[in-house]
Amino acid sequence: MELNEAIAKFKEQNKLMGVYYHAMGVMSYDFETAAPKNAVAGYSDVMAKFSEITYNISVSPERFEILDTLTEHKDEIDEITRREAALAQKSLKLMRSISVEDYVEYQRLVNEASAVWHDAKVNSDYASFEPYLNKLVETSIRFGRLAAPEADPYDYWLDEYEEGFTQDVLDGYFDKIKAALVPLIHRISEKPQPDNSFLHKHFPAWKQREFSDKLMEVMGIDRRDCAIGETEHPFTTGFNKHDLRITTHYYEDALESSMYSVIHEGGHAMYEMGNADELDGTTLFGGASCGMHESQSRFYENLIGRSRAFTDLILPIAKEMFPEQLDGVTPDEFYRAINRSEPSLIRTEADELTYSMHVLIRYEIEKKLMHGELSTKDLPAEWNRLYKEYLGVDVPSDKEGCLQDSHWSGGGFGYFPSYSLGSAYGAQILAHMKKELDFEGLVAAGNIEPITLWLREHIHKYGLLKTPAELIRISTGEDFDPQYYIDYLTEKFSALYDL
Amino acid sequence: MELNEAIAKFKEQNKLMGVYYHAMGVMSYDFETAAPKNAVAGYSDVMAKFSEITYNISVSPERFEILDTLTEHKDEIDEITRREAALAQKSLKLMRSISVEDYVEYQRLVNEASAVWHDAKVNSDYASFEPYLNKLVETSIRFGRLAAPEADPYDYWLDEYEEGFTQDVLDGYFDKIKAALVPLIHRISEKPQPDNSFLHKHFPAWKQREFSDKLMEVMGIDRRDCAIGETEHPFTTGFNKHDLRITTHYYEDALESSMYSVIHEGGHAMYEMGNADELDGTTLFGGASCGMHESQSRFYENLIGRSRAFTDLILPIAKEMFPEQLDGVTPDEFYRAINRSEPSLIRTEADELTYSMHVLIRYEIEKKLMHGELSTKDLPAEWNRLYKEYLGVDVPSDKEGCLQDSHWSGGGFGYFPSYSLGSAYGAQILAHMKKELDFEGLVAAGNIEPITLWLREHIHKYGLLKTPAELIRISTGEDFDPQYYIDYLTEKFSALYDL
Repeated sequence: MELNEAIAKFKEQNKLMGVYYHAMGVMSYDFETAAPKNAVAGYSDVMAKFSEITYNISVSPERFEILDTLTEHKDEIDEITRREAALAQKSLKLMRSISVEDYVEYQRLVNEASAVWHDAKVNSDYASFEPYLNKLVETSIRFGRLAAPEADPYDYWLDEYEEGFTQDVLDGYFDKIKAALVPLIHRISEKPQPDNSFLHKHFPAWKQREFSDKLMEVMGIDRRDCAIGETEHPFTTGFNKHDLRITTHYYEDALESSMYSVIHEGGHAMYEMGNADELDGTTLFGGASCGMHESQSRFYENLIGRSRAFTDLILPIAKEMFPEQLDGVTPDEFYRAINRSEPSLIRTEADELTYSMHVLIRYEIEKKLMHGELSTKDLPAEWNRLYKEYLGVDVPSDKEGCLQDSHWSGGGFGYFPSYSLGSAYGAQILAHMKKELDFEGLVAAGNIEPITLWLREHIHKYGLLKTPAELIRISTGEDFDPQYYIDYLTEKFSALYDL
Repeated sequence: MELNEAIAKFKEQNKLMGVYYHAMGVMSYDFETAAPKNAVAGYSDVMAKFSEITYNISVSPERFEILDTLTEHKDEIDEITRREAALAQKSLKLMRSISVEDYVEYQRLVNEASAVWHDAKVNSDYASFEPYLNKLVETSIRFGRLAAPEADPYDYWLDEYEEGFTQDVLDGYFDKIKAALVPLIHRISEKPQPDNSFLHKHFPAWKQREFSDKLMEVMGIDRRDCAIGETEHPFTTGFNKHDLRITTHYYEDALESSMYSVIHEGGHAMYEMGNADELDGTTLFGGASCGMHESQSRFYENLIGRSRAFTDLILPIAKEMFPEQLDGVTPDEFYRAINRSEPSLIRTEADELTYSMHVLIRYEIEKKLMHGELSTKDLPAEWNRLYKEYLGVDVPSDKEGCLQDSHWSGGGFGYFPSYSLGSAYGAQILAHMKKELDFEGLVAAGNIEPITLWLREHIHKYGLLKTPAELIRISTGEDFDPQYYIDYLTEKFSALYDL
């Protein structure tokens, strides 16, 4: 195939698939936020058909020929097309290494395992899920070996989610944070806890909706480009830089919950709204990786949102909306309540300090599973042992233990580390940003825009054009270094708990 | 083509197009209810692509061959497929009579005219719109002649919107209601008006949202099949009988507005939820015609919703939600306020009695335009003359006059009569339903279900399987007769205004 023909066809195919992905994205968002419950059957028919159409384009012999042509001539093509082709090749690596039967069989396994996991979680019945998990582990090892015969299978999967981050890097990362944070968490668990009962008074949902609008205004989110919906679990989805959707969930007895989910999801949205115009409509629109996306959401949620400057800024606004509930609460009480840290069982509800310990435990377990050093039969015992050792908590049931997350039931081994990396990226980025910006002063003044523009210039504008490691170098001038994260947490929580 | 092959291909094409229509429907709903403003460009790209794909299927030579085969063998195929094929043939009649260039040119004209109309309405500048309207009239006449050389062009268009209802029928219909209602309206305009100021106190939107839920519950709408959203102008859209969407708009100074739009749109939704299971997934899912659809929405809105039994039922519920606003309002005051009738300028805001006069005026004007008896230049004067004559109102500007509706700017000549026919169908259906059901007793008891089941059995279950005229015969045992509508309005409003 001629190079020019390959480029033209590549763009055309991407554009066509983009239209289907856009439609499927809107339908998923609608399904989660607006559709009546029984819409499911009709919805599934559309999704199945569109998935079939895009799948057939993406694994067609023509597609392979196009990609091979582009790879062969990669030094002759522009940067955007080169990166698009490289990522498309990468995403097809597994698909081109396994048989169609293997692929279909795996899809069936994942669907069954997800359904079984769902019931197993409800009934805290790990035994029913274990055979499926065992098969998923075996298949992931086998697929990893087929896709990357030269690599360790777990490294293959880690690199799928966070390009360039293999066990080499992550072992060092998790060892460091374990050594620093486990003792810190244990020391804090012996200290008295601040009162946070005022965050759990009655906050009517309709008032919280207005509060969300205020928060998005403070963050500087242009509502002409970003809408907000309501779902059981908050998420963000984006179709192009002018059409982002975040969601939240209003608990009337927990102001903090939707408040910080709006800021967190708003951070994800900011990332994609900040993509350079020339990436819109290309396959490079979005975020560099799960970890880099999470770094931006947590930047707004934790580094800005849970800073003293921000809680001081937001308290008067919150009091205006909820005068009775927050009557008499001082800035210091508000800041301490928002930052209360306590070891707990559920990852998604963990506070800023203990969060990465949940991830660490999953990393250690995944590593052993993928190397045959832990059998899925022994997984719950190992899980519970690690929760006791690192967080000091007893796991009362598998429902609140190893069955809590959906990731493994979907075959997602290697995804968890990106959650923790996001926080570590953010701390390193913040340290460098502070050399150029009066971070606290800006937040205190409610002037978030210069911070967003800094992030846009150093991270957001690149979309998927750069790898996470490259973005760390671009934004900080050095390689990834977890020490910033450790220092940030140690300093913040030592002060909070008077250590 | 073999008949069996034609049937199989026909079903396959319909199913595939159905998937695209479903996706486009959800995207439109999302665009109106949830998407941020700037989503428009990306949204348009998807809609354009999917429209192109479905258009190419529906006008392909293969499609024509399939339809011709099915038409030729129409006595050998099942009722559903026969009707599907007949409606598909009907919808392609125009397309197969004009050239592709004509079609493209017409699409361009409509797009331009719509944009020009939009600005013209804002600026009350009819002169800028007039040349486009003139061209639209000319093209509609020409297209009507090409599609149906044997017929009057206006009859062709009327039949497009309301199968079987041509000028023969409509002249008789409108003459009758004009003779009966114009004098009635004039007599009422001399009577004192009931107080409705309590409907215009402050009703917070968040409270009205809860009230909407209550209303849908009273109507017996299964929320697992029907969701509610918010838009500038209320509408209903449905993708299958388990996925309906209605919308409303909350005006904080007008309780009646969203209350009756919810009941009206709920009636549209009821119609499609009541389709027989075997029509789901076929092209016969939906309502028989615009007029028949409107008959069902207005059945719930007016015949049920504005009846004394219903206002008596709903007042205590409304008072529970709005105790201060409705303090001291008696059932009689509530009923009279809800049914206040006053000639006005805007069709969409007209009350039950005067509504059809707005339609009558449009019908008379369309008829003259389509027969060259009125030039578009003279249209505003004719419009204003008729409003004065029939409704006794002076039209202060074209914005509130002949520029108020979007229909003509989109080439929709012949659509308006269906709005009025819907009310007339409903009154005739009600008269016959009352022979079998204790209508007032059921409504008073809040027991709407038997009424819905009656409508389902006589109307809803048929979807598009029958023509509106056939449905009138099925549900009433006789042909369409506008006298029921005249009697209903005369009796109701004579009593309300003590004539």
